Amino acid sequence: MGDRLVIVGGDAAGMSAAATARRRDPAIDIVAFERGPYTSYSACGIPYYLSRVVEDVDRLVARTPAQFAEAGIEARVGHEVTAIDLGAGRLTVRDLDANAERHEPFDQLVYAAGAEAVLPDVPGAEACAPVRTLAEAQRYRAALDAHPGENAVVIGSGYVGLEMAEALVERGLEVVLLDQADQVMGSLDADMAAHVQEAAEGIGIRLALSTTLEGIEQGADHRPRGVRTSVGTLPADHVVMATGVRPAVGLAAEAGLAVGETGALRTDDHQRSPGWDGVFAAGDCAESHHRLLERAVNIQLGTHANKQGRVAGANATGGDAAFPGVIGTAASKVCRWEVARTGLSEREAHGAGRAVVATTIESTTRAAYFPGAGPIWIKLVVEPGTGRLLGGQIVGVENAAKRIDVLAVAVWNGMTAKELEWTDLSYAPPFSGVYDPVLVAARQAAKARGASASPS
Amino acid sequence: MGDRLVIVGGDAAGMSAAATARRRDPAIDIVAFERGPYTSYSACGIPYYLSRVVEDVDRLVARTPAQFAEAGIEARVGHEVTAIDLGAGRLTVRDLDANAERHEPFDQLVYAAGAEAVLPDVPGAEACAPVRTLAEAQRYRAALDAHPGENAVVIGSGYVGLEMAEALVERGLEVVLLDQADQVMGSLDADMAAHVQEAAEGIGIRLALSTTLEGIEQGADHRPRGVRTSVGTLPADHVVMATGVRPAVGLAAEAGLAVGETGALRTDDHQRSPGWDGVFAAGDCAESHHRLLERAVNIQLGTHANKQGRVAGANATGGDAAFPGVIGTAASKVCRWEVARTGLSEREAHGAGRAVVATTIESTTRAAYFPGAGPIWIKLVVEPGTGRLLGGQIVGVENAAKRIDVLAVAVWNGMTAKELEWTDLSYAPPFSGVYDPVLVAARQAAKARGASASPS
Repeated sequence: MGDRLVIVGGDAAGMSAAATARRRDPAIDIVAFERGPYTSYSACGIPYYLSRVVEDVDRLVARTPAQFAEAGIEARVGHEVTAIDLGAGRLTVRDLDANAERHEPFDQLVYAAGAEAVLPDVPGAEACAPVRTLAEAQRYRAALDAHPGENAVVIGSGYVGLEMAEALVERGLEVVLLDQADQVMGSLDADMAAHVQEAAEGIGIRLALSTTLEGIEQGADHRPRGVRTSVGTLPADHVVMATGVRPAVGLAAEAGLAVGETGALRTDDHQRSPGWDGVFAAGDCAESHHRLLERAVNIQLGTHANKQGRVAGANATGGDAAFPGVIGTAASKVCRWEVARTGLSEREAHGAGRAVVATTIESTTRAAYFPGAGPIWIKLVVEPGTGRLLGGQIVGVENAAKRIDVLAVAVWNGMTAKELEWTDLSYAPPFSGVYDPVLVAARQAAKARGASASPS
Repeated sequence: MGDRLVIVGGDAAGMSAAATARRRDPAIDIVAFERGPYTSYSACGIPYYLSRVVEDVDRLVARTPAQFAEAGIEARVGHEVTAIDLGAGRLTVRDLDANAERHEPFDQLVYAAGAEAVLPDVPGAEACAPVRTLAEAQRYRAALDAHPGENAVVIGSGYVGLEMAEALVERGLEVVLLDQADQVMGSLDADMAAHVQEAAEGIGIRLALSTTLEGIEQGADHRPRGVRTSVGTLPADHVVMATGVRPAVGLAAEAGLAVGETGALRTDDHQRSPGWDGVFAAGDCAESHHRLLERAVNIQLGTHANKQGRVAGANATGGDAAFPGVIGTAASKVCRWEVARTGLSEREAHGAGRAVVATTIESTTRAAYFPGAGPIWIKLVVEPGTGRLLGGQIVGVENAAKRIDVLAVAVWNGMTAKELEWTDLSYAPPFSGVYDPVLVAARQAAKARGASASPS
């Protein structure tokens, strides 16, 4: 082990790597370079910052450069890495304030540059300020304050688009949510996404599905004024592009790190870059092993970024940590629903050529007689015959997210629906009926498992 | 298979058996005898009925005798079984209204008589009306209405006692909660129970722990007037005895069914009574196999009663269903906390002569910056060396119950703390920090697993 660990990217993965390395090795030098002004912040909190559910931007910062400095970690914000020379063990880094470039040597490198927005290739797209980083969110909220306007269009109806649309409704705007797809939230099957659509419309969001974006109209001030679509032009004082992100691998690929079929950096389960000793990749820019699909995927989530960063930081300091992979668990709050998923959706399973049996139940989040009880739907996807649990989707008025974790542990362990059905889960009237909805769903899936369904 | 299935007891286990048998066999005669006026009700809802969170008693009834009749199940309420002749396949049943006894033949028998209150052997205990059944709860609420009074004493600080104490506070009474033990809620370790005590005191419940009950003082109307204890006499317009229950096995034992060391009826995993073909026992009166203790236990919970009833009903109609046992999962809402447990507590493990390592973490129920985030404590008990998860206890302001289910599935599958630590659980700011408290707890336990602790 050399004695200088350098990290590209100062967010979840990078700073997890730094903190883990520091805990393991008090002597090593640790330097992280971050282009933006913030380290270790919650990008997932941005919609709540825009809506002012969270007032102060500093609340979203888990740890500042000063706090890292106290822990013996140098986090240089406002520093952009512009080139990597793996053979020489050297970065080229630009100090954005001083506008000066210099070389920085490394013995171990953790590449954790995250992801970057994919903007649609339509005229005027550049008028839409991105809202991915905390600094961008500050500028966006300032624009909302300065130009309140009346209409907003959110392009892309994934969970980010939905959360952004809700935030803009809370800011008092008339919001249209636009997507080329014929459903919101493509991570859910259409039947479950229908509940989300109903909730979005319930708070006044207008859905423009199966609709193609054709361009952004700008005013003289270069701010957006309208959104041209296949069904006409929508007035828009504000636009959010939530059209997805791609792994930020440019620099790493130029330097020679292997890029997988997903477009993200390949690593082994120790987050090591194949062919380069002491070089690691972690977080949104890196692949993960999907335990059910049995192939590499690129899922940009803080949970994986944090864990992969820890693995990289441990192994960069002589450790032997392994990231066991992912099963596609995710949750979000969309209007009145908690929405969550794990494992394979029916569509994903069919896409992978796998026959599955899918069943859905409706139940209540508390005992039916208990005040506050509300609806919850659970869809399970199982292997025909064996009934092995492959995935679940939950939409409900409460406790969907923690219930998805119950399913996630069951899927992770390869349980069958029948095994889960008989598992000793808790019950009290404020939390469920005597059979928790998860057990009701498992029972239904266990019954149906014989009815094989072919991939379409 | 004969063609008359008779069930003793019309609550969770008995009526689950009836419903399952009916679904499987449309031809068989099914008759259930229930002493009280109600079938299939939620005893767990009684505290909420007393506090008027649930106004109408009918809300607590899942299915009435009339509804069972529509499904082809005869549920004879107001009928007490007074003797069982297993050899002759015959019950003696008293019609309580008509005050007439007659014989009822059976081909298959499911004994599901539930549990009965254990009253302390002190003078005046008979002045304390029980509050276990729905009919008793109606009388008790009527007494609260007719004699509001000012003071109440609840004897026994398990979850039922705590829920009752809270209900009486909501009724406007000054409540003392009395227990011989030096902590509330003996199903939790003392360190976790301390949070519950703080919450109970927070709503004004006065705790009298390490205090012995010596007697009940009655007024001329035979209603309670005071409670004599080792630390003096407490005024009491109302008393609740929550001093536990025992399996109601009297009739069954007289008839020759085997009673285990727990005092409950022995069965195999098909709920069959050993030595008697076609005779089954299920629910609060029956034993369950504890998968971690590897011995029979008697845990009175609606979850087990429902499942065992289903097993009995399936096997009584030619099926082949097995109850896989329990791991001690339970949850309740106590004042501001959700309180939940699964597997072995530290005390239980020590009682069974098992060395364990226990660790506790404090975290927040949502991202720390998210409005409504509150404290949550998770204690994990693991096997030294391997770190295999043996149990967990959670106290928190929300989402403790569903998080215990995550732990329950992990314990059920024999996961280690380290495996759980890396499992793909969900994250979004309204539901947790980026590491769910369950993962934080698992990480802490995985680290500590080397530090072996001997049973005391």
